[in-house]
Amino acid sequence: MSQSFGIALGPRIRKSPFFNSTVKAGVSHFTTYNHMYMPVSYGDLAAEYDRLINGVAMWDVAAERQVCMKGPDAIELARLITPRNLDKLVYGMGRYIPMCNSRGTLINDPVLQKISEDEGWISIADSDMKFWCEALAVGKGMNVTVTEPDASPLAVQGPKAVDLISDVMGDWVRELKYFGFKQTELNGIPLLVARSGWSKQGGYELYLLDGAKGDQLWDSIAEAGEAYGIGPGAPNYIERVESGLISVNADTDDDANPFEMGMGKFIDLDQDVDYVGKAALKQIAADGPARKFCGVVMDGDKLASTNAHRWDIEQNGRYVGFASAAAYSPRLDQNIAVALITTEAAESGAEMQVMTDHGVRNAVATSLPFGKK
Amino acid sequence: MSQSFGIALGPRIRKSPFFNSTVKAGVSHFTTYNHMYMPVSYGDLAAEYDRLINGVAMWDVAAERQVCMKGPDAIELARLITPRNLDKLVYGMGRYIPMCNSRGTLINDPVLQKISEDEGWISIADSDMKFWCEALAVGKGMNVTVTEPDASPLAVQGPKAVDLISDVMGDWVRELKYFGFKQTELNGIPLLVARSGWSKQGGYELYLLDGAKGDQLWDSIAEAGEAYGIGPGAPNYIERVESGLISVNADTDDDANPFEMGMGKFIDLDQDVDYVGKAALKQIAADGPARKFCGVVMDGDKLASTNAHRWDIEQNGRYVGFASAAAYSPRLDQNIAVALITTEAAESGAEMQVMTDHGVRNAVATSLPFGKK
Repeated sequence: MSQSFGIALGPRIRKSPFFNSTVKAGVSHFTTYNHMYMPVSYGDLAAEYDRLINGVAMWDVAAERQVCMKGPDAIELARLITPRNLDKLVYGMGRYIPMCNSRGTLINDPVLQKISEDEGWISIADSDMKFWCEALAVGKGMNVTVTEPDASPLAVQGPKAVDLISDVMGDWVRELKYFGFKQTELNGIPLLVARSGWSKQGGYELYLLDGAKGDQLWDSIAEAGEAYGIGPGAPNYIERVESGLISVNADTDDDANPFEMGMGKFIDLDQDVDYVGKAALKQIAADGPARKFCGVVMDGDKLASTNAHRWDIEQNGRYVGFASAAAYSPRLDQNIAVALITTEAAESGAEMQVMTDHGVRNAVATSLPFGKK
Repeated sequence: MSQSFGIALGPRIRKSPFFNSTVKAGVSHFTTYNHMYMPVSYGDLAAEYDRLINGVAMWDVAAERQVCMKGPDAIELARLITPRNLDKLVYGMGRYIPMCNSRGTLINDPVLQKISEDEGWISIADSDMKFWCEALAVGKGMNVTVTEPDASPLAVQGPKAVDLISDVMGDWVRELKYFGFKQTELNGIPLLVARSGWSKQGGYELYLLDGAKGDQLWDSIAEAGEAYGIGPGAPNYIERVESGLISVNADTDDDANPFEMGMGKFIDLDQDVDYVGKAALKQIAADGPARKFCGVVMDGDKLASTNAHRWDIEQNGRYVGFASAAAYSPRLDQNIAVALITTEAAESGAEMQVMTDHGVRNAVATSLPFGKK
């Protein structure tokens, strides 16, 4: 990014329970996410990347807000908001659930956690799903309340996260399956501990359940993590591209559907639930998706910066889509991006051109995640 | 604000059609609003305030997004989303419509514009009302589509705005009533011109209806405005406090209802429409609102900065509410704030204490806007 601007601080956008701790830890840049300030850098992106890939990092991701659906119709409401089949949803296990509007467009991709028989939480990407869920329930006359609970995830990510968190919480965390979770506490701090996180480096999300104890939780993890060289970080731009993780609104547009985004395996068109978007998704499945979310490898010098906006992609002089997140990957020693391009272009194997801020780069499409054969 | 942080630029948050123009004009700080970067300062807040109060300023408020409801049930849907009576809604006139959830909490306060018999637009504050409106329509089985049109307001505000915009558009704009609007064009740029804006200094919002022509519109207004000393600005923190304008999410919390926020005159509890929140609002009206949105005048030295977070307010040592926006007003030569405090505290006339970042300040409540008797 060559341009540099300040962010205004005011009460309209909320501060995380960890805000003061992140300031003490040297946060330099924020974004906003779900109406909350979210750290994106502490001023040394190379060190933050290295900690995530080789050590352990702690991220303030309180902005990954929760939407709680509670009441006799809570699980029924959960079934209406996703094309995923929830027949086998059980307590203690989360499930990744694409959410679509009535046109079949992807509007969010949370993890759903069944908290009890009449209560489910979704851990949302950056859009107001609280309003979506409540309005749907109101319209249907369902008996369910929709609220945002006092729950703020602190992510601990990286190959040393398992050892660290078992030091802190006990060895039981080693047995948690991916997306498994448990409510517990740490020195009086109420927590929900989940094996999850927005990286492929492994780790946990500690959902702080008392917003007044953010600094206490931060300090506990920072102190226990010293032995592992822990340091602050944030959802990592490079690692998420390498791993092919989806960022709704960055990677998706008003027409992107779950089939295009590689989520076809989560879509059950035949289940006996009249979820939102079902008819549209059936039509899309019948027609075949027009585009494909894929990787792109670009030639030329190392990209000097990540992308501040989408980069157009052309093939044979024709626009075929866009790269939504691009970076130089130290591990792969390649310039890579995630992109949403026509199925034809993605599958042709033919060369494409990416209109980067660092000139036109020749590129080829590849599968995600990068480096997987 | 003593703390200073950068804002990350990436494709998840959208850039306004005027983004490049604002960068050329020297924007220094952004916030985000409706998933879009929105300028808040060009580095000289005193000059920006002066232009708004005494001259004319142009603001990129493209982030004031539109939600379009179109179809046979569009106006019926509009009636469901607001407690305001829309019996007399006519084409060409906007109407300020509080929106509530089923608990009667204020969730947005847009202006509704009836574009045609089967199409209404709401010009929203910072929350995803597109999802609210669509989910309600889906739940009710209504025949209406909900979209975000390509419409991006450029505000022209200040006492010289009327002369400037009549130079540019013609004298007909002088006759537009407040919230009146008309679709037109300017040198091939399609526009909706509305007499509106988030200040009490008068002016217009030019809704750009072709996102590719943002810089062209910006340049046209900047050029014609030279004679009036026009310059860039943004929704003004000081002026909005002076004028008592409401900023949803800054001034409101999860319990704030329209009666507390001084919007009682817009609430029709008796109309024959089963809008969202009707039962809750009836109960609140019967009980009487617990709090009141009011002004606060604080003593002591000029506030050295605006507030980066809410400031608690106490009376006789007891918490009675919070100040959500505070500033030193040059016009009034007073330290002022808008606050949401208990009705009792607001009406007692007794002294309160505001816990500012600049020490405890004694304060008294007053009506809004400031300076009005």
